[in-house]
Amino acid sequence: MTVNVLGISGSLRQGSYNTALLRAAKELAPEGMVIEEFDLAPIPFYNDDVRLQGYPPSVEDLRTKIRQADALLFVTPEYNRSVPGVLKNAIDWASRAPDQPFDDKPVAIMGASMSALGTAFANHHLRQILVYLNAHMLNGPEVLVGGAASKFDAQGRLTDEATRDFVRNHLTGLKRLTLRLKG
Amino acid sequence: MTVNVLGISGSLRQGSYNTALLRAAKELAPEGMVIEEFDLAPIPFYNDDVRLQGYPPSVEDLRTKIRQADALLFVTPEYNRSVPGVLKNAIDWASRAPDQPFDDKPVAIMGASMSALGTAFANHHLRQILVYLNAHMLNGPEVLVGGAASKFDAQGRLTDEATRDFVRNHLTGLKRLTLRLKG
Amino acid sequence: MTVNVLGISGSLRQGSYNTALLRAAKELAPEGMVIEEFDLAPIPFYNDDVRLQGYPPSVEDLRTKIRQADALLFVTPEYNRSVPGVLKNAIDWASRAPDQPFDDKPVAIMGASMSALGTAFANHHLRQILVYLNAHMLNGPEVLVGGAASKFDAQGRLTDEATRDFVRNHLTGLKRLTLRLKG
Amino acid sequence: MTVNVLGISGSLRQGSYNTALLRAAKELAPEGMVIEEFDLAPIPFYNDDVRLQGYPPSVEDLRTKIRQADALLFVTPEYNRSVPGVLKNAIDWASRAPDQPFDDKPVAIMGASMSALGTAFANHHLRQILVYLNAHMLNGPEVLVGGAASKFDAQGRLTDEATRDFVRNHLTGLKRLTLRLKG
Repeated sequence: MTVNVLGISGSLRQGSYNTALLRAAKELAPEGMVIEEFDLAPIPFYNDDVRLQGYPPSVEDLRTKIRQADALLFVTPEYNRSVPGVLKNAIDWASRAPDQPFDDKPVAIMGASMSALGTAFANHHLRQILVYLNAHMLNGPEVLVGGAASKFDAQGRLTDEATRDFVRNHLTGLKRLTLRLKG
Repeated sequence: MTVNVLGISGSLRQGSYNTALLRAAKELAPEGMVIEEFDLAPIPFYNDDVRLQGYPPSVEDLRTKIRQADALLFVTPEYNRSVPGVLKNAIDWASRAPDQPFDDKPVAIMGASMSALGTAFANHHLRQILVYLNAHMLNGPEVLVGGAASKFDAQGRLTDEATRDFVRNHLTGLKRLTLRLKG
Repeated sequence: MTVNVLGISGSLRQGSYNTALLRAAKELAPEGMVIEEFDLAPIPFYNDDVRLQGYPPSVEDLRTKIRQADALLFVTPEYNRSVPGVLKNAIDWASRAPDQPFDDKPVAIMGASMSALGTAFANHHLRQILVYLNAHMLNGPEVLVGGAASKFDAQGRLTDEATRDFVRNHLTGLKRLTLRLKG
Repeated sequence: MTVNVLGISGSLRQGSYNTALLRAAKELAPEGMVIEEFDLAPIPFYNDDVRLQGYPPSVEDLRTKIRQADALLFVTPEYNRSVPGVLKNAIDWASRAPDQPFDDKPVAIMGASMSALGTAFANHHLRQILVYLNAHMLNGPEVLVGGAASKFDAQGRLTDEATRDFVRNHLTGLKRLTLRLKG
């Protein structure tokens, strides 16, 4: 079987290292895994008054695609030691009843940053959020790309071989976890 | 002197318990403290491409008002064990150079929730974010209002006397911390 | 097959509600699950100088029993919003090379407390620790017993029926996760 | 006036980089600050049955010295993404009633580690613990010494000039915070 993964970047910036890392992941996915990219740009701000009138189409689309995916891949920057508001806002929408779509879903988390600490804090905030949503999070070795500027070329291609291996191994781990949980 | 506080609710919902709690705080502020409310609705999604062309007016307004305030009051719901994306997004904008406005600023955090756990997790995520931004956070006794539905009336007025006392005490603590740090 | 679980209480106190909760778990375990109790009292303080001369026998015993167990159950109090030093110290010993025994191990976490917030913060600190050790943590519904004094009788027997159901369901979830991961 | 600081290392190892960093801090303290070292080795494991018979002398000594100090300096390793059990255990003892001694106390946190991530996670767990105890924590720039082996000489003397400057600045910040809060 093919493991279908929905990949979400937490940055809206055109030249985002995190979106570039998600594209590298698509290329480096192991045989039997396909990663589809979801763009957060059309998702509006969460407002429960809006939700009660029905989910906006972009949110409905996100919820459906999460539900249909075999696994998720978040690629998130770290802003102020946590996940970006843009990403958290999308999770706030997607997480609501009915049929909370993160339930029982295998999830991998990666991130890229200019700082040496990589995205270690954002990674752990996202994990705490996903505990509540009953996702199965892949553990390490984590892909926390620090010093990003030196690891991508001018076209946004991930060129650092050690990082490419980390990505490959992490995705292989996600495939294995997904298949183990499917039984 | 008067301690001028900028108060920010993390919810966009009209009937939000958190916005109602912020309004209660305005009413319960001790003598010598004035709380001004800032509405997050006009703040767009953070996008660094946009920032590089200049801060949007609503963001510039937020940054200026944070800078001018003597202290801040966040009143935040908890969504999925963290702060709402709406609030984190505003902080992501406000926190950028130059003149990062949270620097050395006294901050109090409150929250209201339907659940019995109140907003304890969101409170701690927000604290971790604000460490990085060099704010001075007031500690406890924390105002984590659980079971909110029974503590406000149909007009959104905080009626629970014990909670009103918690709010009063917390604001008195914020005033005292602000004055101590001013010297 | 029988799922063999090693159960560890984070409290050394004779009348500990957490040790009492662990005993309740032994009684409430579903068919096909056996919980053995491990007593942390003989474990010394972690000191790397000592470790380099060989693990103390009590630590060797803990490491062997974790390795042999199909799954782990931590029942932990919350002290100062985190796990007790007593429990963290045991994990510090057990987690070292070679053959780090938490690797790929299913883990459930429970806790009891006098406070209304239960042990929610200790639970999340322990989760962050176990991410690093590559354990598979069961998510919710979490067993965070608040107001413990009213839920156990004078002999330390868990008498609150709703809590007994939470414990039963959590252990059934642990059994199911363990079997899914074994394949 | 002199700012008297109680310094506590979280490691019991003779050649500990963290104890070496605490000794460097004693040497690098600004004029008007004196740092006294407290050794955690005599502190027993926390057990509430023992506490109810009276604090052990080593614990009483720790509690008295915290209470008398103008400020605290924790120098902590990171084990498994959190503070060592040894340090948490000492805090568990010290934090109990009556006269909880961390209340209103200025606190700085440093740490050293062999890993590139330094001790960033342990730092944040310790902060969460100290929020509850109403300490005033100094923020950044944080002293999270990564790659410790290259920054100390064979005698355990901190030789890396950039790190020495970080330590100096952090202690100057602690002195300033302490004096501001004293008024």
